[in-house]
Amino acid sequence: MASERHAGPIGKAAKRSGMATIASLAEKVGLPFEGDGTLEISGVSHLNRAREGDLSFVQSEAYVKQALDSPARAVIAPEGMDVPGKTVIRSPYPQLTLARITTLLHPLPERKTGIDPRAAIGEGCRIAPSATIHPMAVAAEGVAIGERSEVYPGVYLGVGVVVGDDCVLHANVTVEWGCRIGNRVVIYAGTVIGSDGFGFLPHEGRHEKIPHVGNVVIEDDVEIGANCAIDRSTYRSTVIGKGTKMDNLVHIAHNVDVGPYSLFSGQTGIAGTSKVGEYFTIGGQAGVAGHLELADRITVGPKSIMTRPGTPGEIYYGFPARPAHQWRQSIAQFNALPRLVNRINRLLGSKTEDSEQ
Amino acid sequence: MASERHAGPIGKAAKRSGMATIASLAEKVGLPFEGDGTLEISGVSHLNRAREGDLSFVQSEAYVKQALDSPARAVIAPEGMDVPGKTVIRSPYPQLTLARITTLLHPLPERKTGIDPRAAIGEGCRIAPSATIHPMAVAAEGVAIGERSEVYPGVYLGVGVVVGDDCVLHANVTVEWGCRIGNRVVIYAGTVIGSDGFGFLPHEGRHEKIPHVGNVVIEDDVEIGANCAIDRSTYRSTVIGKGTKMDNLVHIAHNVDVGPYSLFSGQTGIAGTSKVGEYFTIGGQAGVAGHLELADRITVGPKSIMTRPGTPGEIYYGFPARPAHQWRQSIAQFNALPRLVNRINRLLGSKTEDSEQ
Amino acid sequence: MASERHAGPIGKAAKRSGMATIASLAEKVGLPFEGDGTLEISGVSHLNRAREGDLSFVQSEAYVKQALDSPARAVIAPEGMDVPGKTVIRSPYPQLTLARITTLLHPLPERKTGIDPRAAIGEGCRIAPSATIHPMAVAAEGVAIGERSEVYPGVYLGVGVVVGDDCVLHANVTVEWGCRIGNRVVIYAGTVIGSDGFGFLPHEGRHEKIPHVGNVVIEDDVEIGANCAIDRSTYRSTVIGKGTKMDNLVHIAHNVDVGPYSLFSGQTGIAGTSKVGEYFTIGGQAGVAGHLELADRITVGPKSIMTRPGTPGEIYYGFPARPAHQWRQSIAQFNALPRLVNRINRLLGSKTEDSEQ
Repeated sequence: MASERHAGPIGKAAKRSGMATIASLAEKVGLPFEGDGTLEISGVSHLNRAREGDLSFVQSEAYVKQALDSPARAVIAPEGMDVPGKTVIRSPYPQLTLARITTLLHPLPERKTGIDPRAAIGEGCRIAPSATIHPMAVAAEGVAIGERSEVYPGVYLGVGVVVGDDCVLHANVTVEWGCRIGNRVVIYAGTVIGSDGFGFLPHEGRHEKIPHVGNVVIEDDVEIGANCAIDRSTYRSTVIGKGTKMDNLVHIAHNVDVGPYSLFSGQTGIAGTSKVGEYFTIGGQAGVAGHLELADRITVGPKSIMTRPGTPGEIYYGFPARPAHQWRQSIAQFNALPRLVNRINRLLGSKTEDSEQ
Repeated sequence: MASERHAGPIGKAAKRSGMATIASLAEKVGLPFEGDGTLEISGVSHLNRAREGDLSFVQSEAYVKQALDSPARAVIAPEGMDVPGKTVIRSPYPQLTLARITTLLHPLPERKTGIDPRAAIGEGCRIAPSATIHPMAVAAEGVAIGERSEVYPGVYLGVGVVVGDDCVLHANVTVEWGCRIGNRVVIYAGTVIGSDGFGFLPHEGRHEKIPHVGNVVIEDDVEIGANCAIDRSTYRSTVIGKGTKMDNLVHIAHNVDVGPYSLFSGQTGIAGTSKVGEYFTIGGQAGVAGHLELADRITVGPKSIMTRPGTPGEIYYGFPARPAHQWRQSIAQFNALPRLVNRINRLLGSKTEDSEQ
Repeated sequence: MASERHAGPIGKAAKRSGMATIASLAEKVGLPFEGDGTLEISGVSHLNRAREGDLSFVQSEAYVKQALDSPARAVIAPEGMDVPGKTVIRSPYPQLTLARITTLLHPLPERKTGIDPRAAIGEGCRIAPSATIHPMAVAAEGVAIGERSEVYPGVYLGVGVVVGDDCVLHANVTVEWGCRIGNRVVIYAGTVIGSDGFGFLPHEGRHEKIPHVGNVVIEDDVEIGANCAIDRSTYRSTVIGKGTKMDNLVHIAHNVDVGPYSLFSGQTGIAGTSKVGEYFTIGGQAGVAGHLELADRITVGPKSIMTRPGTPGEIYYGFPARPAHQWRQSIAQFNALPRLVNRINRLLGSKTEDSEQ
């Protein structure tokens, strides 16, 4: 086995789970507990996989029996829920409290700051001294990177890209020229921000390219999954609103405007020039057609394609998508179609049904 | 803020929009204008987002009112269209003319040529002196790169890869051994060309791999979006025909042959060993089944899967895909199914409908 | 044309097809042949693209005519199949034998071992001397890489990642901290292993992040396509069972457990916390809903979404997915719906059908 050292920062150490007592954890999150405050917690888990030293949570009465059967000796549960034999931290939001305790139990280690000498930084870049630029990252000319932001190996930042404070750009992310990333934005590995939109004009049998001179603007507190692609605008900005979260392999076309606090499941896509409102939610492998302006708080079900503006707060399923209850009725009848046809044949006469194919 | 310099080329500067007069722009594209030829244009835009200094376009009479309401003082419009109060460049193809003027207003800056010393170039590579190889790009042995082609950071070119003239390979693109890229090909960031096809043989309870010793051939004037994947052929070549354009996250399986001038929307896929004809078009999140040979000029609608050769020039929707008008009729009846069943129940008797759970 | 040399290993040479006689190939795979053993074979191919010097295979009687019409002078065929005029290697598994002979005809060249000086290796890494680490690959602290494994340019391995023996990690793959890769695992370019799962809790109008402190475990003999994304577990491990093979652009969410010897077509996805059994198979662009535990040997058809546990060995189609024969009956009736409605109108009265717009 060979082994090598290097001077610069490469990757943050992680998963250094320490031990902590129930009493100290409850104090840190400002919540009361009942039972043995000296109990040592070594990990966190869902109830169905919990081990003895784990802290878990009981979201509702339906899970109390699972909690009692679990080897975990401590749980987080709402006030008034009876979980006999367990030490209990009381919280109105048990899962949220577990998330916060997880962060306490897995603190990020000290991070080396500065620019690794094996990174390539272009002329005129402004990089905050508290930022971390890993080896093999590349910033073209005039890139700005804010305080405490971290840029992993293989990231490419094009000319004039601006990255705010407290961002994390994971390995092999690409951000093309002129795009702007806000504060506290996390972009997972392999994602591409600012590729040219898919715009061509048919002309004399060929597809003539429409130049894309706009950019992408990612607002604060956005999180974007792995291997997504968000295209730049033709002339202005493709915008991802603040607090929006995206899963993996999401496709956002040129000129799209995503409202704040939206949620994108994996493998979803928004076609060009569409605008979705705030608190938009879309299920796995679904899409929104182009040139639409959706109402606020729309939900699109899995595998569906939204082709109309919709009514605020409504849930849509199918292609073309319709209100969920209508789609469910149609699907139930679709599933029952062979029996319906048999019934019609029995009642109306038995001419061979002329089904296609 | 820290700042560092480097000698080699990193990224092209971009979006250096200059000012130009209507008269000078009209002359450069060889078209007449009416109105104030001294008007200074500082940008380009769609009508609905245009600002005062922008040049926009009016595609048809339906948009004349929007043009009149817009602060933009200059538009491109067809001969004979009345746009009172605006300076007008006359063009039979207003959007195409705007695309060409966009290129005039945003010229690419001078580009440094040559191989950045932080790139890694294998033995026996032939790289044109007018090409630009950015830092952290890697070419394995025997790679050839043509005149004026640009290879961005993080690109990997496997053994014996050939890239033609005037190509752009954006950051973190991977082209595996033996693949051939034509001239004027653009590949956006993160795309993978030449990964092994998905070919396995069930044998004694395991999946035994079929070695893939073919390659991928990308013909001239092809543009491929971000984070696509195009697999190499088992024995010969997976081919992307000339002038074909692909959006993001497209999957092309092994042995596929794509005809010239085809258009792929985002998140589409072609299964193994299928051949699609010229001017093939496919809507978002749609697919083509394997081992098919499609007719020319087929269009497959969004979310659909084509499972038959089809008729030249026909449009197909659904899974399995059928001619669009047939699918639309069926979908209209699908949406009306609950009412149809109620009607049948009323007329034929009211036994509880035996719909499936 | 410029050309540069370098000392380290960059990419393996490939496709060095040698010549071999039928007699020598048959001997190496331990199978009998009939005809001209001195015949020189220069390549391999499917029958429909075979050239004179190629060896091809005849899977069944249906392909005998194609074999006779082919210029290929040698084929692999089962015992007892008559292929007059051809030299024939006899095998009960003709395609499998061709795969093995392909490997013999395209041997991997000698590979340089060791760590390229342009790779960045963190403190405390243990890298087997027979491994190959290409330029621009980055290993963070405490990474372990086993015997004969190959790590291509642009790969990033996070803190504490473990890679077993005989693995190939293609260019620009990212493996996040703490993930574990077994032996003989192949991961194609651009794939991301161990990104945080998509877990957020709604709280006071925002989406609060659930920290992900688990990892991903890839068992032995797994092959993962290009530009896939496999998320880390919230607390424990996302698991890809041994011998499983995935095509490109596959999305595996957090906490998923994939049984051994499963097959994933391109652009498929498994939602969070679902478990699929052994020999699971999923068609293109299909998915499995979250929080399910599927039976063994389930097959999900293309474009379908599985929303229930299913029966072992059953095939499911549609959304929500149902047994394939039921779905096929419903689709046939769906396609015939316009005619069914016409028939009902004729028989029951001709009030205008109230189909929805």
